[in-house]
Amino acid sequence: MSTDISTLDLEEAGAVLAAESARFASFGWMRGTSGNLSVVVSRDPLRLAVTASGHDKGELTPSDVVLVDGRGAAVNGGKPSAEAELHARVAALTGAGAVVHVHTVASVAMGRRLPGGILFKDLEMLKGIGQPAHDVEVTLPVITNSQDMLVLGDRLEAARDPRMPAVVVAGHGLYVWGDTPRQARHHTEVVEWLLELELSGH
Amino acid sequence: MSTDISTLDLEEAGAVLAAESARFASFGWMRGTSGNLSVVVSRDPLRLAVTASGHDKGELTPSDVVLVDGRGAAVNGGKPSAEAELHARVAALTGAGAVVHVHTVASVAMGRRLPGGILFKDLEMLKGIGQPAHDVEVTLPVITNSQDMLVLGDRLEAARDPRMPAVVVAGHGLYVWGDTPRQARHHTEVVEWLLELELSGH
Amino acid sequence: MSTDISTLDLEEAGAVLAAESARFASFGWMRGTSGNLSVVVSRDPLRLAVTASGHDKGELTPSDVVLVDGRGAAVNGGKPSAEAELHARVAALTGAGAVVHVHTVASVAMGRRLPGGILFKDLEMLKGIGQPAHDVEVTLPVITNSQDMLVLGDRLEAARDPRMPAVVVAGHGLYVWGDTPRQARHHTEVVEWLLELELSGH
Amino acid sequence: MSTDISTLDLEEAGAVLAAESARFASFGWMRGTSGNLSVVVSRDPLRLAVTASGHDKGELTPSDVVLVDGRGAAVNGGKPSAEAELHARVAALTGAGAVVHVHTVASVAMGRRLPGGILFKDLEMLKGIGQPAHDVEVTLPVITNSQDMLVLGDRLEAARDPRMPAVVVAGHGLYVWGDTPRQARHHTEVVEWLLELELSGH
Repeated sequence: MSTDISTLDLEEAGAVLAAESARFASFGWMRGTSGNLSVVVSRDPLRLAVTASGHDKGELTPSDVVLVDGRGAAVNGGKPSAEAELHARVAALTGAGAVVHVHTVASVAMGRRLPGGILFKDLEMLKGIGQPAHDVEVTLPVITNSQDMLVLGDRLEAARDPRMPAVVVAGHGLYVWGDTPRQARHHTEVVEWLLELELSGH
Repeated sequence: MSTDISTLDLEEAGAVLAAESARFASFGWMRGTSGNLSVVVSRDPLRLAVTASGHDKGELTPSDVVLVDGRGAAVNGGKPSAEAELHARVAALTGAGAVVHVHTVASVAMGRRLPGGILFKDLEMLKGIGQPAHDVEVTLPVITNSQDMLVLGDRLEAARDPRMPAVVVAGHGLYVWGDTPRQARHHTEVVEWLLELELSGH
Repeated sequence: MSTDISTLDLEEAGAVLAAESARFASFGWMRGTSGNLSVVVSRDPLRLAVTASGHDKGELTPSDVVLVDGRGAAVNGGKPSAEAELHARVAALTGAGAVVHVHTVASVAMGRRLPGGILFKDLEMLKGIGQPAHDVEVTLPVITNSQDMLVLGDRLEAARDPRMPAVVVAGHGLYVWGDTPRQARHHTEVVEWLLELELSGH
Repeated sequence: MSTDISTLDLEEAGAVLAAESARFASFGWMRGTSGNLSVVVSRDPLRLAVTASGHDKGELTPSDVVLVDGRGAAVNGGKPSAEAELHARVAALTGAGAVVHVHTVASVAMGRRLPGGILFKDLEMLKGIGQPAHDVEVTLPVITNSQDMLVLGDRLEAARDPRMPAVVVAGHGLYVWGDTPRQARHHTEVVEWLLELELSGH
């Protein structure tokens, strides 16, 4: 299969993802080699740059990146994480340009306490995900984990709320998305802040 | 409307605010793009330099700053946050030379637990806001949030205690002020420390 | 006793251990001068480079390292920690190429709460120690502390689970191992994450 | 009163104290401008270099230091904190070469919970303050705060346990000492670790 993404474009995407990963790793949200980040590099056909599997997320280089198609399969070689399939599905489903997957303690702890979803209301921080601070109730969905990315994607699709650019995967972590890597970063920070607030209140 | 503040003065103010913002961002108190900082650059007429809206508070440059008047309106262009109006009001009301607005988890968590205000006494740290450590009881007021800055300002004016250079906005965050950006920083650190202490005791 | 390990090899090992130690120290996991790290530099005879005792673990230099044999005794001079004996035993027992010993609050707090061992299941993070996320229950053993490294080693040998590359020493801290210093780091981060999750849930 | 301490010696002491202060500030243990550090520069007559009052403890320079005598009074000008008197008394009383005073949340929170003193036993970390890990019970004394340094010093003298190089001042913070600034740092880290452990278990 041919593709228009040049090696140069891919390395530029890899440099952005490496910087974003190092930031999240410094927060302790990508312990071990956990989590992965992606950015859409072409929409039609759908192509994403995804961080390579198995690396320390605080030590990625611009070349630690794999180009995948809409099913998460490698286009030009390399070994993407199985989760690349879910990144691609989130991008196709939501129109997001960037997807963040991190393993935070607060997301797993809160998913365990509130497996039916985590409700937020009357919080100014909701404006950080494009919602009004008042007069809305927004739920962060919690879905059951699976090693089958098709099953996990179906659950995400069924559970997601268009007003909330994130889903908690129980016993696993957080998926968050945005138009760009920077917006996805900000959405991730906002959702994690909301989770830490709820965690402190129990 | 003319003003005496030169572009150079404004950039110098912007450099100070960028450095202070980066510090608070590193503490996790400005997640997403939340919060904003200001410094008074002229008192008569009242003019404040306020951090520009929508930026990552760890990545501001000296030019990411807007000059506003006493009602929080832009003087020479740029798009201030709606909250610039409250910064201006705090500066006018208290005589403060700098205002800090941050979104800390502890302030929102404690505002939820004690919506009537948070009482501190017998704490040496109170000296950091100019109070004696003993024989006083100082209350950190908690006010209800509003998107109307006039309403929010009225609440702040009605609730504030001259001995406490800070107010918690429920479901939102913390406003703190001081004579200079450095003093406002220290007041912010002291108030947040007090909140974290109370949070650890519940 | 002669040995094939050159001074150069030892300093290279020391440089790796100094960098790993500085990382763990920045996490607050090596407060005071606590903890020590090792890497196997030869397998037959067994030789380990171990961080020197009594130094600040955030300030090690490549020469702050001691070469020890399979009983933890210094081969070419220097003063290893008494715990070097346990590092050597872990390396011999498990085949690990690197051993991490850190003093984390979460490991001692959880060892106190669950002295019979800490059970994990249905957690994606378990993949970070080579286990499936589902359909397994993995226990992090907790062993009683001792100043006698032979006794402590016997307890570790009796308690360890081959699926879990770590043991909590009650009232003391965490031993973790891996094929390389980097894998041992990742295992340490994963085990600590699991402990912090359990701690947040009580 | 003449003294043998040269300006050069004092600046060298100031450089050490500035570096130690910046480290503690980065841990969040010197919020606002709280806390102060000292090092003994002569024993007979007793002279200490103490960090200057009112500065941000993350931004000290080598000249932000004052030389004080055994009663905490400035020898060559400058304005020491009132607490310099207590530093001098600790140095005279214990023979310590360096004193650390920090405001940590854990020390004030635990002093509030256990105003009669905080007992530690069966903790390997006790070796970091020169105690055996087992078969001892060591108490971290908690004394009532006072603005009168003579009163506070009397309480410290009456309460202190020679086996514990630290005292909690209720509603205030932590005094810790050691032979050198580095040992005082390590003692501080150990005592704070012990306090954080106890705080996590309640």
